Amino acid sequence: MNKGRIEAFTDGVMAVALTVMVLEMKVPHGATLEALKPLWPVFLSYILSFAYIGIYWMNHHHLLQAAPRVTVRVLQANLNLLFWLSLIPFTTGWMGENQFARLPVILYGLNLLLAALSYNLLQSCVASAHDELHGFGDVLGRDAKGKGSILAYTLGIGAALAGYPMLGFVVFTGLALVWLRPDRRMERLVGIKRPSE
Amino acid sequence: MNKGRIEAFTDGVMAVALTVMVLEMKVPHGATLEALKPLWPVFLSYILSFAYIGIYWMNHHHLLQAAPRVTVRVLQANLNLLFWLSLIPFTTGWMGENQFARLPVILYGLNLLLAALSYNLLQSCVASAHDELHGFGDVLGRDAKGKGSILAYTLGIGAALAGYPMLGFVVFTGLALVWLRPDRRMERLVGIKRPSE
Amino acid sequence: MNKGRIEAFTDGVMAVALTVMVLEMKVPHGATLEALKPLWPVFLSYILSFAYIGIYWMNHHHLLQAAPRVTVRVLQANLNLLFWLSLIPFTTGWMGENQFARLPVILYGLNLLLAALSYNLLQSCVASAHDELHGFGDVLGRDAKGKGSILAYTLGIGAALAGYPMLGFVVFTGLALVWLRPDRRMERLVGIKRPSE
Amino acid sequence: MNKGRIEAFTDGVMAVALTVMVLEMKVPHGATLEALKPLWPVFLSYILSFAYIGIYWMNHHHLLQAAPRVTVRVLQANLNLLFWLSLIPFTTGWMGENQFARLPVILYGLNLLLAALSYNLLQSCVASAHDELHGFGDVLGRDAKGKGSILAYTLGIGAALAGYPMLGFVVFTGLALVWLRPDRRMERLVGIKRPSE
Repeated sequence: MNKGRIEAFTDGVMAVALTVMVLEMKVPHGATLEALKPLWPVFLSYILSFAYIGIYWMNHHHLLQAAPRVTVRVLQANLNLLFWLSLIPFTTGWMGENQFARLPVILYGLNLLLAALSYNLLQSCVASAHDELHGFGDVLGRDAKGKGSILAYTLGIGAALAGYPMLGFVVFTGLALVWLRPDRRMERLVGIKRPSE
Repeated sequence: MNKGRIEAFTDGVMAVALTVMVLEMKVPHGATLEALKPLWPVFLSYILSFAYIGIYWMNHHHLLQAAPRVTVRVLQANLNLLFWLSLIPFTTGWMGENQFARLPVILYGLNLLLAALSYNLLQSCVASAHDELHGFGDVLGRDAKGKGSILAYTLGIGAALAGYPMLGFVVFTGLALVWLRPDRRMERLVGIKRPSE
Repeated sequence: MNKGRIEAFTDGVMAVALTVMVLEMKVPHGATLEALKPLWPVFLSYILSFAYIGIYWMNHHHLLQAAPRVTVRVLQANLNLLFWLSLIPFTTGWMGENQFARLPVILYGLNLLLAALSYNLLQSCVASAHDELHGFGDVLGRDAKGKGSILAYTLGIGAALAGYPMLGFVVFTGLALVWLRPDRRMERLVGIKRPSE
Repeated sequence: MNKGRIEAFTDGVMAVALTVMVLEMKVPHGATLEALKPLWPVFLSYILSFAYIGIYWMNHHHLLQAAPRVTVRVLQANLNLLFWLSLIPFTTGWMGENQFARLPVILYGLNLLLAALSYNLLQSCVASAHDELHGFGDVLGRDAKGKGSILAYTLGIGAALAGYPMLGFVVFTGLALVWLRPDRRMERLVGIKRPSE
């Protein structure tokens, strides 16, 4: 019954995080192509972070749709996820301004990794509250995509640590492309479990 | 059934994009008319971009109202539209700060053009999912206004390229005035197809 | 039927306008009372503008509740109101930073005046669409409070023009205190016309 | 009936307050750990304020759920609460930038104290409107947690005043940990009074 409000709040935070990121892309003073050039890494970082927040929004959308009820634990896990997502404008800005230097790419990767772990936690909170009722366990049991992502983030961070930050950025970009297709499992769940709606 | 949430997220992003633009209009230090004067091009750009985002909101409102269901493809096309709209505060700020110089006007026009193409894409995604059911095809088939707009944006960009950026700005402004009347086709569709609501 | 979405968008714009205003209150560098002191006029301006946007939100809330349907004209009048409200962070910041100097107070007053006129316009758009049905005409006919406000804004601007900007600020503050009690007429209307809800 | 809109507006303001705070965490220019180091106090302050706004959101959520109707007085008390919450990005930024110096910690504590008093006021406005109907009085009568918090804020402010600002910060952090568990009383109330939903 209170699902509407957790959705509204989450949508609000995600929409703001997504949109204030553009403020990190400082308007250059000159009106020439040269003035615009140093913004390329900032723009690339912006695209990637926009995609990630958009992906989280789409999956969150599907996840909550599958959850018939919201518990206190779900509220807390959701706040935790929003915390890590709210940091993305900062880590994105730092990575862009330093043209994919080693440390900023590592921090950006850590931010993505922690957001992913928080999403997994939220997912299990939703699942544990409704397991028997809605067959979450079966569907999420084979969460290969989620586990693979954690591995990919770790590899990307490792690449940056080893001195190849651009490789790390490429890994994060590739993963975003994989995730741009939203989580079908949830869709199937919604389709199976709530056919009356 | 999940239409409410895509609307809420879109409203959030558009509302923030619209409102953070005012932050690009830096508060001048002096309290004189002279201190305010250099802000005129920024203010004019602000008005135009406010109008454009408002127009997108109104048309999006009508478009989604006509769509009974939201598919994954629609979610993705919507995110794509929001991406281009989220860049408007940046291109607006650059154009205003450089008093309608050639390159910033070209970039602003490209931003509007890409947003328009993204809206057309969203429109066809909505239409292709519900064609037979709701007669979208017939109504959108004669999309003269949409096609004319693409042409007008191209002409405006061309004018700026040829060294007449102010002419480009005038074209973009004229087009906004045309679009300030929301899309009647969608209204008609809503009126015809959902008379019971 | 589409009332929900115009409300959501309006709430979004108002919430953002209200909250980004705090960003105009720049964090001082020192940790002393002296460092905080120059912020007093900014803080006072912030309180007043917060109150005004809050008042608009409350009255908008009541106005739309009384309106059973939203027309294209209402959407446009609403966008126009939002435009003037979105400028408030800018005029507030300018007035605060210049410690209630003459010109910034005049501009702030003009902003409030234009927002008030836009609200009146929105009100008549809502009324003209539903006059016979809902008895708007009778209730709004004696709009003494609305007309008195226009007069008060004009007087405040006049005082600033005449060289007494602080008097203008006091007038604007007094008016906010009057309006902090929301529009009972709308409440009555809602109570009378929609008892079934 | 108008509960939806007060919730939407509150969610909007809280979501924005929460997310624009990250803009106070200025992106450092270097790409080294040294460049990141001075941000630690800002980051710690950010976490704490994020937690507080999250807590207010959760409790507000439960409070309004228990309130079947929204009166003018509730709207006003809610605006008052939002005012103090909207200042949190400013006081957080000041405290972080000055590494928990005495005066900024005092101001931050005052901000939290005033937000807490405003929340209590909102609570009684909701309660006084629905007392007989919903047994609010009984449940809130023993508001030990609320009263204890006021005491704790006062102690934290006192510690900072006495020259131990870090102790004050620790008190505020401890209190946030206590409150991260949302108000069970409201949950119980909702469970008891509205079993049909």
